[in-house]
Amino acid sequence: VKRYLALAEGYSADDHYGKTTYGVIRYGADPVVAVLDSTRPGETVEGVPVVGSVAEALPLEPTTALVGVAVAGGRLPPVWREILRDVIEAGLDVEAGMHEFLADDPELSELAARHGVELRDYRRPPADLSVPSGANLEQDAVVVLTVGSDCAVGKKTVVVELDRAARARGLRSVFVPTGQTGIMIAGWGIAVDAVVSDFLAGAGERLVVEGAKRGNLLFVEGQGSIVHPQFSGVTLGLYHGTMPHLLVLCHRAGDVEIEGSPGHAIPPLPELIELYERLALPARPARVAAIALNTGRLDETEAREAVDAVARETGLPTDDPVRFGPDPLLDAVLGRLPSGITRP
Amino acid sequence: VKRYLALAEGYSADDHYGKTTYGVIRYGADPVVAVLDSTRPGETVEGVPVVGSVAEALPLEPTTALVGVAVAGGRLPPVWREILRDVIEAGLDVEAGMHEFLADDPELSELAARHGVELRDYRRPPADLSVPSGANLEQDAVVVLTVGSDCAVGKKTVVVELDRAARARGLRSVFVPTGQTGIMIAGWGIAVDAVVSDFLAGAGERLVVEGAKRGNLLFVEGQGSIVHPQFSGVTLGLYHGTMPHLLVLCHRAGDVEIEGSPGHAIPPLPELIELYERLALPARPARVAAIALNTGRLDETEAREAVDAVARETGLPTDDPVRFGPDPLLDAVLGRLPSGITRP
Repeated sequence: VKRYLALAEGYSADDHYGKTTYGVIRYGADPVVAVLDSTRPGETVEGVPVVGSVAEALPLEPTTALVGVAVAGGRLPPVWREILRDVIEAGLDVEAGMHEFLADDPELSELAARHGVELRDYRRPPADLSVPSGANLEQDAVVVLTVGSDCAVGKKTVVVELDRAARARGLRSVFVPTGQTGIMIAGWGIAVDAVVSDFLAGAGERLVVEGAKRGNLLFVEGQGSIVHPQFSGVTLGLYHGTMPHLLVLCHRAGDVEIEGSPGHAIPPLPELIELYERLALPARPARVAAIALNTGRLDETEAREAVDAVARETGLPTDDPVRFGPDPLLDAVLGRLPSGITRP
Repeated sequence: VKRYLALAEGYSADDHYGKTTYGVIRYGADPVVAVLDSTRPGETVEGVPVVGSVAEALPLEPTTALVGVAVAGGRLPPVWREILRDVIEAGLDVEAGMHEFLADDPELSELAARHGVELRDYRRPPADLSVPSGANLEQDAVVVLTVGSDCAVGKKTVVVELDRAARARGLRSVFVPTGQTGIMIAGWGIAVDAVVSDFLAGAGERLVVEGAKRGNLLFVEGQGSIVHPQFSGVTLGLYHGTMPHLLVLCHRAGDVEIEGSPGHAIPPLPELIELYERLALPARPARVAAIALNTGRLDETEAREAVDAVARETGLPTDDPVRFGPDPLLDAVLGRLPSGITRP
């Protein structure tokens, strides 16, 4: 069994840039025994101790280091090279989801070979991808995709929660991961943002076909946002490649602008819902079934008020599945299956 | 100076799959002296003789072979390997825009080295791409992007024609190529469909920044279609990355379904126009300035009628710039610059 040391230098208190660390701690199959962040030794992340150096982590017997931060563009900051040398020299395997593949780095791969450890790049796409064939429309499965008003608002967490709740009810539900953290959680998937653009929809189709072998209710992790000035292409390619029956719109309560992109307003939610629905292809009309509202920055009373306000504004079932539990949102999704679709 | 042998085996009569051959013959800076297609020896393509073998082309003194077909997915069909061996052994450089890079093929690169010829892969993206920085909104240039109802309806040809007409009027106009044929025509550019998805909009931004160094009226080659089940992600990423002021919608008269994708209807043009305009980000609202109608499958009378019908249906200036000349369409574009934008 793997025991992870999550590398989160500088970001162990940040569940945005450190979202891989947080995701694997919360939802991964294998335990995280320590988080490395020399800026916060002695603190904890979701109950896991933060250590200041690799040496300090070793008594906790980690087997595998994971690169637990996601930086825009996904490239390896130079300071990280020293950390990676340290963990390799300590005999740990390394798992990462950066655009720069560790195994292609001459220095690190030579060092890994010398110390007998593996470098696993979860963002490396399958070599045989192509354009979609139309198989995405022929699977015997209900496809639910999360879409967002922005990046990092909870699109992965929401499908992980909905999938867990559905499996707890005995449904043949599957979490379909489309990014590096999701892949680390589930042990399979494709990081669609690392795929050659021409094969983006083909990657979405592949994920749905693969998911349908594992179950008949697919909760697909969405990416980016259709109104994100950097990542909208990934959002739309994944949407059209997975051909969802239903969408769950994820939004962080109170957000009015794309984070990190001043001047890029998020449209009012009813407009955003209409835009996502308009973008469905005629061969598979998709409807927004519910709103998953991320209320993590609000207190309990504010959170309830925000949920009610969005429900009124959109006329759709709205809830925060992390804060209040996923069952109401799952009920909303299952209650809105299009006619002609067999309930899973 | 280069003298091209265009390799169009099986597709020399097809300006869709053979569009690279046709594009370079019509608009390229260097001459195409022969087209290779063993199924049609003795015929011509746009006045250029078709030869049945490489040996037959040699008296015409080609210096460079170009892979002149575009197959979906861009991979090299096995039958092509023999043709490529023949041209390399005949001492020709080879230029290609496939997803599989010729220079990465061990057999072909070894053969090329042995015969002292170069293999140039125009689809290989720059190594230093990243996400957009916002520089796309800060250039002192008017950006015009072609968008389409489908692939292969004329998005590249229309910007090439508009750019030519604008330069003939003394404007500092630039054709901005985003695909392999355009790059072969202009000698620069990025094949955006070969870029890692995360950097798609970043590639669009890079093209606009680079274009603005060359002039102040940028005609950007669009890709795919927002309603194309295979390529919509590329379309939207390029759109948001280039941040156009104006769009020119390209459509083939009479098309009602995405070619090669049965069941995927093209929406009525007024709906498609509205969808493209709705997808503009609030930081740079874009309007469809005109319709470029491809009437290549109609006779002259039918073409005039089709242009009139689309103009009535959409309320927008409509013309076929290839058939009737680009000036009316250029007038329409220049007449619809948003307020606040200096006429180039």
